[in-house]
Amino acid sequence: MVKLGIAGACGKMGRRIYELALQDKDIEVALLLEKKGTPLIGKEIGRMKVSSNLDGLFLTDVLVDFTLPEACEEHLDYAAKYKKAVVLGTTGLSQAQMGKVEEISKLVPVVFSPNMSIGVNVLFSALGEIAGRLGPDYSVEIVEAHHKWKKDSPSGTAKKMAEAIQRVTKKDIPVHSVRLGDIFGDHTVIFCGNSERIEIKHQAHSRDLFAVGAVKAAKWVSSRPAGLYSMQDVLNG
Amino acid sequence: MVKLGIAGACGKMGRRIYELALQDKDIEVALLLEKKGTPLIGKEIGRMKVSSNLDGLFLTDVLVDFTLPEACEEHLDYAAKYKKAVVLGTTGLSQAQMGKVEEISKLVPVVFSPNMSIGVNVLFSALGEIAGRLGPDYSVEIVEAHHKWKKDSPSGTAKKMAEAIQRVTKKDIPVHSVRLGDIFGDHTVIFCGNSERIEIKHQAHSRDLFAVGAVKAAKWVSSRPAGLYSMQDVLNG
Amino acid sequence: MVKLGIAGACGKMGRRIYELALQDKDIEVALLLEKKGTPLIGKEIGRMKVSSNLDGLFLTDVLVDFTLPEACEEHLDYAAKYKKAVVLGTTGLSQAQMGKVEEISKLVPVVFSPNMSIGVNVLFSALGEIAGRLGPDYSVEIVEAHHKWKKDSPSGTAKKMAEAIQRVTKKDIPVHSVRLGDIFGDHTVIFCGNSERIEIKHQAHSRDLFAVGAVKAAKWVSSRPAGLYSMQDVLNG
Amino acid sequence: MVKLGIAGACGKMGRRIYELALQDKDIEVALLLEKKGTPLIGKEIGRMKVSSNLDGLFLTDVLVDFTLPEACEEHLDYAAKYKKAVVLGTTGLSQAQMGKVEEISKLVPVVFSPNMSIGVNVLFSALGEIAGRLGPDYSVEIVEAHHKWKKDSPSGTAKKMAEAIQRVTKKDIPVHSVRLGDIFGDHTVIFCGNSERIEIKHQAHSRDLFAVGAVKAAKWVSSRPAGLYSMQDVLNG
Repeated sequence: MVKLGIAGACGKMGRRIYELALQDKDIEVALLLEKKGTPLIGKEIGRMKVSSNLDGLFLTDVLVDFTLPEACEEHLDYAAKYKKAVVLGTTGLSQAQMGKVEEISKLVPVVFSPNMSIGVNVLFSALGEIAGRLGPDYSVEIVEAHHKWKKDSPSGTAKKMAEAIQRVTKKDIPVHSVRLGDIFGDHTVIFCGNSERIEIKHQAHSRDLFAVGAVKAAKWVSSRPAGLYSMQDVLNG
Repeated sequence: MVKLGIAGACGKMGRRIYELALQDKDIEVALLLEKKGTPLIGKEIGRMKVSSNLDGLFLTDVLVDFTLPEACEEHLDYAAKYKKAVVLGTTGLSQAQMGKVEEISKLVPVVFSPNMSIGVNVLFSALGEIAGRLGPDYSVEIVEAHHKWKKDSPSGTAKKMAEAIQRVTKKDIPVHSVRLGDIFGDHTVIFCGNSERIEIKHQAHSRDLFAVGAVKAAKWVSSRPAGLYSMQDVLNG
Repeated sequence: MVKLGIAGACGKMGRRIYELALQDKDIEVALLLEKKGTPLIGKEIGRMKVSSNLDGLFLTDVLVDFTLPEACEEHLDYAAKYKKAVVLGTTGLSQAQMGKVEEISKLVPVVFSPNMSIGVNVLFSALGEIAGRLGPDYSVEIVEAHHKWKKDSPSGTAKKMAEAIQRVTKKDIPVHSVRLGDIFGDHTVIFCGNSERIEIKHQAHSRDLFAVGAVKAAKWVSSRPAGLYSMQDVLNG
Repeated sequence: MVKLGIAGACGKMGRRIYELALQDKDIEVALLLEKKGTPLIGKEIGRMKVSSNLDGLFLTDVLVDFTLPEACEEHLDYAAKYKKAVVLGTTGLSQAQMGKVEEISKLVPVVFSPNMSIGVNVLFSALGEIAGRLGPDYSVEIVEAHHKWKKDSPSGTAKKMAEAIQRVTKKDIPVHSVRLGDIFGDHTVIFCGNSERIEIKHQAHSRDLFAVGAVKAAKWVSSRPAGLYSMQDVLNG
């Protein structure tokens, strides 16, 4: 039984992780954390009080953190203080903050991944292997599609897919970014050569896939030694 | 330099293999074989005479065979007699004929594959790995599409993809067969679960992809010990 | 300004329609209807009280109904009594209940459609036209994919697409049904012939598309004469 | 029975048109035309002699022309001289040459289309209609994919699709161009909004689709009055 703390418990991701954790027989939710001043502090959601007391980390095995860069820095300090594992899904960390993540990971196990989707991380591994086995006769391009409010282009996930393939093929991988309507997130990698093609398309249906990945990572990391891990480590068992 | 014999040299596949071999600096075409009675026997195609003399195998390192089951039996005998490697793309072999392939492969190296496409064989490996890493929360179905003249349904390739996944997931994989117009051959594997999906689609543009695979196999097999190999062995190097 | 009544206002569809209506400057929500005994009766959602009093229909121009067959029968009676337009998205009506819908539509305008998606209804029109222009050299099949809990197969939408094409081509249109994970709803129509193919794929991202369609229908129907209309009528203006 | 002349009869397109015409019971091939100096002049292909005599046009009803801009100018002069219809698939015409096409079309019927594919031309009509019916809530982007040797980008077909939609939506339509392996030609138009999307994908399997379209146009144009026609006119009957 893994005792779970959820930072940002009242945010969209936090709530969804809480729901999934309640349904998981291997998890006991031990802490719902929100920042001081949030109106929900002291109120119950699903029979558990929301707290802003970071010393509550003492009661947990793992903290899952989908918050903001500054908040997550403080959470990392407390995770180190109480020797608790961390699953870190917070994005937008500065170089200095990334340095802190690395420091803390020498003391406690940390899973850090900007995209916790199981499918995307399985593809990060598979794409390089496929590119390697196909060999140099096949060229590759990536088409990604996201809703029109998405600001970065290409997506971080597309960049990481391109890197995984580039590491093997030593060629630049062009990425095309479609920004359209309310598409949650598609990534299509097209390999073509020798009169055949392989299209590998990942499609996210909702943000649920990130919450599922975070819960999986929390269960995995609770029994690991200190170190910095990725979702690919989680999936490779 | 690999000395190549081509059985069925005047058939669609044979001619295409011949063309590719002529452009390949690592291959010297040493024998164009056709069955006795074919009008082209004794005539030249691309400066080389077509022959029906199986003892010509003596001049080769590898025989590539895309013919008919009965013809290929005789070719296997001669390959054994002269200790020559074989790339066997002939389909429709009986159980007894398959037994013969196995016998001969104890004496000489044989690559046997009903679908020599590089992409399809890369996927045979990748699909099982992806299914294993995704884990039991993801279900899988396959949709394949071929021209309306295709007789078997589902396609042999779809069956083999399903088997590769089934070996890992221990679940039946439904296959849907679309028979439509002049589609050369599409295979799409859909994994779905946890609010995400991965679609892996292979599309053949023409029969060229089988000829390319056969030539690749010929170069690979010429330096192997006796044994029965698949295209996956070829691609794994 | 259209005065809108929402039957089943606390259901998933009703709530979403309410949210969209609140943001629509051409709509004033005049009635939130729920069945007697629902705990929310008399409580406020978004500053408006939920009621079970069908005479409240008097205050509206149009009633949007996503409820159950029995409930919707009663709603139709009151719509007829007060001469109010109806947008009916309730599914599973019996033959007798369908007869009632037809009767009522002689007195008031009724938009009835089992799938209120704008995109799907645009395709119902376009598919027949495309099939007609392509002519008899092109064959057609449909592949639809839905989550594994969907009970009917093929989907009602796939059947209606097939009918639209059959009316023009006079040929049976095979439909393949994939049931997988949590796919909300995909429909792909494939036309193939003469060495080319056209694939037309509709993908629903969430149930929102039905709510959007219902609101569009409500605005359209409020100024129509009595009659039975489809979403295609709405979209044709 | 339409009497067909084929200009560029020994080119890839010309040969394919010839083959299709031979199988078509409504067509009689009356002239195989090639430029002076071609080694095949005077030789027979399929029992008919190849000629460079433009006065042979006298024997035909329609001339199908897939040649080069300069050659096609001369062919147009002879078509005008003998009052014969023309199907013009030659690309890369200058402004002046286009002016000549218009001049000639006042004297004889001319079908001019840079892409004679039936499917693509059906979509040119359908895309505008679909965009119009979907209305302003839907945004549109186009992704096209072609082999890596293709020089222009975006493809002429993608541009024309974008124009057809722009005429209705009054919005710029972004086009993404993938250049990869030996893809013959894909065009995908994506409409997205209101929590749904429609993807319309045209895929060419080989150059056959242009030959089929040219033959269809030849049969259609033989009985028309003088004028400049498009493939859309042919398809609308």
